[in-house]
Amino acid sequence: MECDPIGTVHTPHETTSDAPRQGLRTDAEGTLELHEAYHEGLSGFDADRVVVVWWADRADRSVLTLDRDPSRGVFTSRSPARPNPVCLTECRVLDAAPAAGRLHLRGVDMVDGSPVVDLKATL
Amino acid sequence: MECDPIGTVHTPHETTSDAPRQGLRTDAEGTLELHEAYHEGLSGFDADRVVVVWWADRADRSVLTLDRDPSRGVFTSRSPARPNPVCLTECRVLDAAPAAGRLHLRGVDMVDGSPVVDLKATL
Repeated sequence: MECDPIGTVHTPHETTSDAPRQGLRTDAEGTLELHEAYHEGLSGFDADRVVVVWWADRADRSVLTLDRDPSRGVFTSRSPARPNPVCLTECRVLDAAPAAGRLHLRGVDMVDGSPVVDLKATL
Repeated sequence: MECDPIGTVHTPHETTSDAPRQGLRTDAEGTLELHEAYHEGLSGFDADRVVVVWWADRADRSVLTLDRDPSRGVFTSRSPARPNPVCLTECRVLDAAPAAGRLHLRGVDMVDGSPVVDLKATL
């Protein structure tokens, strides 16, 4: 099942160890830029929160248990290290420019430059 | 970015039109079966809720706007029709058999037989 990157997210976290643990709240701000072919998918976007689905391209895909507790499998956690490194981060939208395919976000925990797979309405 | 199916989810929804709209609550029950190579990833699983990340393999990947309102892009929604048909469903866990790689779930909105990409702890 092939995922195409729809864009990139720019954050202050330069490396995996700089990034906050998945699921922990952070106030870090970043910018999500969609590739031009996908701008239309953002038409009419006016939400104040969004779920960013992103790909942890620097994560270890070979692990099935947690480093910090090998009795627990990766599916009991939100660690980016897992067979399919698809990560979910719910962010606050500080500014949206749908025609430019750009969102300014608060609460980014991705490593800078991570590929974006999808954006979803929050429930 | 290649996603490997880690398992399959069995639900009462035989076709896309039978399945509830993404994000709407449903009481439907189903069974998630991990492929054997991934059973270890479920070790120690004892949560009562889980986020199922699944692949809508029968969805139209070519659309960028909503059928019901073409002024709105797919990224303002949770419709499975989108460039990367990665869907998120938070389910209640009725029974877990980690060693067998099996979860019995309530709240399934997937079409029967949909491939599973990931399982995540809820926040």
